[in-house]
Amino acid sequence: MPSLPAVAGVRLGAAAAGLRYQGRPDVVMAEFAPGTTVAGVFTRNRCPGAPVDWCRAALAGGQARALVVNAGNANVFTGRAGVAATEATAAAAAALVGCAPAQVFLASTGVIGQVMPHDKLTAALPALHAALRADRWADAAHGIMTTDTFPKAATRSARIGGTEVRISGIAKGSGMIAPDMATMLCFIATDAAIPAPALQALLARGVGASFNCTTVDSDTSTSDTVLLFATAAAAHAPVPTAGGAMLRGFRAALDEVLLDLALQVVRDGEGARKLVRIDVAGAVSAKSAKRVAMAIANSPLVKTAIAGEDANWGRVVMAVGKSGEPADRDRLSVAMGGVWMAREGTVVDGYDETPVVAHMRGSEIGIAVDLGLGTGRARVWTCDLTHGYIDINGSYRS
Amino acid sequence: MPSLPAVAGVRLGAAAAGLRYQGRPDVVMAEFAPGTTVAGVFTRNRCPGAPVDWCRAALAGGQARALVVNAGNANVFTGRAGVAATEATAAAAAALVGCAPAQVFLASTGVIGQVMPHDKLTAALPALHAALRADRWADAAHGIMTTDTFPKAATRSARIGGTEVRISGIAKGSGMIAPDMATMLCFIATDAAIPAPALQALLARGVGASFNCTTVDSDTSTSDTVLLFATAAAAHAPVPTAGGAMLRGFRAALDEVLLDLALQVVRDGEGARKLVRIDVAGAVSAKSAKRVAMAIANSPLVKTAIAGEDANWGRVVMAVGKSGEPADRDRLSVAMGGVWMAREGTVVDGYDETPVVAHMRGSEIGIAVDLGLGTGRARVWTCDLTHGYIDINGSYRS
Repeated sequence: MPSLPAVAGVRLGAAAAGLRYQGRPDVVMAEFAPGTTVAGVFTRNRCPGAPVDWCRAALAGGQARALVVNAGNANVFTGRAGVAATEATAAAAAALVGCAPAQVFLASTGVIGQVMPHDKLTAALPALHAALRADRWADAAHGIMTTDTFPKAATRSARIGGTEVRISGIAKGSGMIAPDMATMLCFIATDAAIPAPALQALLARGVGASFNCTTVDSDTSTSDTVLLFATAAAAHAPVPTAGGAMLRGFRAALDEVLLDLALQVVRDGEGARKLVRIDVAGAVSAKSAKRVAMAIANSPLVKTAIAGEDANWGRVVMAVGKSGEPADRDRLSVAMGGVWMAREGTVVDGYDETPVVAHMRGSEIGIAVDLGLGTGRARVWTCDLTHGYIDINGSYRS
Repeated sequence: MPSLPAVAGVRLGAAAAGLRYQGRPDVVMAEFAPGTTVAGVFTRNRCPGAPVDWCRAALAGGQARALVVNAGNANVFTGRAGVAATEATAAAAAALVGCAPAQVFLASTGVIGQVMPHDKLTAALPALHAALRADRWADAAHGIMTTDTFPKAATRSARIGGTEVRISGIAKGSGMIAPDMATMLCFIATDAAIPAPALQALLARGVGASFNCTTVDSDTSTSDTVLLFATAAAAHAPVPTAGGAMLRGFRAALDEVLLDLALQVVRDGEGARKLVRIDVAGAVSAKSAKRVAMAIANSPLVKTAIAGEDANWGRVVMAVGKSGEPADRDRLSVAMGGVWMAREGTVVDGYDETPVVAHMRGSEIGIAVDLGLGTGRARVWTCDLTHGYIDINGSYRS
C-alpha cells in the first residue's frame, strides 16, 4: 500500500466497535472541513442497502462534513430497523461534528439480513472522533477491509489554475465477509474546491471508465458505493459550477486514482491469481463493444480457461456470440498476449501457440477481439475463476 | 438410462470413426422412413457452428431422411473448411439413404476451431448405415456423449385420435470435451404423423418451457441443437397443418420428454452435485419473472452457496436486485425448501434455520421468491457451482 499524504481539510481514523469481528478496527470515520462538497455513485442493484438509500438522499444537499463506514454488517434487507440504524448513526456523527445529519455519509459492508447493532457503532464514535488525525489514511484503508487480502489506496496530485491539489483514495473490494457478497466501497478526498455539480459529473464519468468496466463474477452488491469529497482547502482560482477546461488536469488525475483502485479491487478478486484485460474493437458502437467485452469478462468458461493457463480462443468466440450483440463469425479475430490466433472466422495459418502459452503463465493476461464491423471500442478488466473462489464462497457460515 | 422401445420408422446406430476419441463410438446415424417431417430449435449464439447453419437451411424443406451426429469435433469457427465438411457429410449420408442432401440433418460437438477430419467421418458411414437397427437407441445415446457422466434418454407414449404413438429422445449435455464448451444436443423421434409447421410450433413451445429454462453456467454453446422427427408410421387420423386440439395429449407427452431430458442435462452439469429449482412469483410479467429467475440461477454467489449447503438468502436478494427487473426490496420474500425465511424486506421473526439446513444437504434444492408486485411467474432449473466445475474447465488441454 502506498503511503498517503494528508489531504488538507480531512481528518480520519478507525476504531474497533466489535460489530462482527473481534480485535480489529471495523469502524472508520472521517471529518471534512466546512464547505466540503460531495459526489457519489452507487450500486445499480434494485435491492440496495439502507446506507445507499441514505447517501442518495443526502447527496441532494451536495455538502458533506463526515463519513462513517463499518465492516461486518451490511445493513441490507433489514427493513425499518435498517433505516433506524442509518438515522441513529448519522445523528450521532452529526452531534460530534456539529453539522446536519444530511451532511453525514454512511456505508456498510458485511453480512446481509442481520439487524445492525448500531448502539455498538455509535458507542465507539466519540472516542474515535476525538482521535481523528490527518495522517491516518492507512488506518482507514485497513478498517474498511473485510476479507480483502491487502488494503487498497492510491494518490495523485494535479494542478488547478497553477495550484497543486491532492487526490487520495481508499477502497475495499472483492474479499468476502463469509458468507455474504463482495461489496466494493471507495472513498476519495481532495483539497480542491469544486462545486458539487462539477464534482458529480467528474466522478460519474471516472467511475464509468474504471469501476464500471471491471467485474469479478457478474454479481452486483447491494452496497457498492463510491464517494468523492472536495474540502476546498486549497487556495486555487474559483472553479465554475459546470467545471470545464480548468479541471482537465484534475480530471486526469482523478481518473488515474479511480482506475488504480478499481484494478486493485479486481486483482484482489476472490480467489483471483490473474488480472485480465479485455479489449474489444470493431464493434458497431462503443456500447456494443462494452457488452461484448463484459460477456467475455463474465464467462465462467473463459475465466476457468485463464485459471488453467489455457489459450482457449474458442471460448472467447462463444462469449462474443452469447452477448447477443451484432457479430459476424466470419469477420471475427481473436488475440491473446498480442498474438492474433484466429482471424476472419478461422484459425490463423501456421498458428504457433508457443508465445501465447508463455503469456498465459503470467499474472497479467491480455485478450483482444476485433469484430470487424465498425469503430466501437471498449476495455474492461476481470480476473480468473479459481478453486479459491469456490472455497471462499462455498464455505458454510461459521 | 431407461430402455427405449423402437419408434416405428426409425433405425439408428453408432460407430467409432476416431475423430478425437479412440476406442469408443463417436458417430451416430439415424435413418427415417420416407415422409418424415422435422422441426428444430437451435442456439441463439451469434457465432454458431457450421452444422447449425446447415440445419437451419435444411429445415426450410420440413422433410428429413437422415441424421448424422459426431462427438469430438464441434466444426465451429472453421471457416470455409467447416462448410465443406457439412456438405461432404450430408452428401455421403444422402447417397447411402437415397435422398436429397437437404433431407440430412447434422450436429457436431467437441473441440472448437479445429478443422473437422470429415473424410474419417464419411469413411465410417457405409458400414454404420448397413448396420442401422430399430433397437439401437442406447448405442446412440452413448455415441453422442462427450464427458457426460451418464447417457440421457426419455420416452413417453401418447394418443392421437385413439391411436397410441411413441415419443423417444436422447440428449447430451454439460459434460465437456476438454477444453471446449458444453454443448447441448437433443434428438427426439416419434412415429406420429404431424405436419412440419405443427411440429415446429410444438417443439418451440416445449423447448421454451424446458431446455430454455435451464442453465449450468450462463454460457451458451455455439452448437446447441434440438431436433424432432415425426416418421408418420403410426396409422392415426390426419392432423391438420396447424395442429390443434387433437395434439393435446401428444403435446403434453412431448413436453414431458423435453423436460425430462433437460433436467438430466442440468443434473449432469459440469461438477454439479445438486439440482436447483427456482420459482419466481409476483413479478410484473412472466417475462420479468423469468429474467429474475435466470439472474438467480446464473449467480456464481448463489450457486457456490448451494454447493456449500448454505441457506444464504442474502445472495438471492442480491441476484433479484441485479436482474434489473422491477423489484421492491420491502415487498420481497424468499423461501428455501418451502420455508419462508425472509418476508417483506426483512428476516422472518423467530426464523428457525434448522429445517432449511436439512433441506440444503439434499440433492434437490428449491428456492422460491415472491416479488409481491404482480402475477408473473416462472420456473427455471440450475445446478450448484463446485470445485468440479473448475477442475473440468480449468484443466489445460492435453
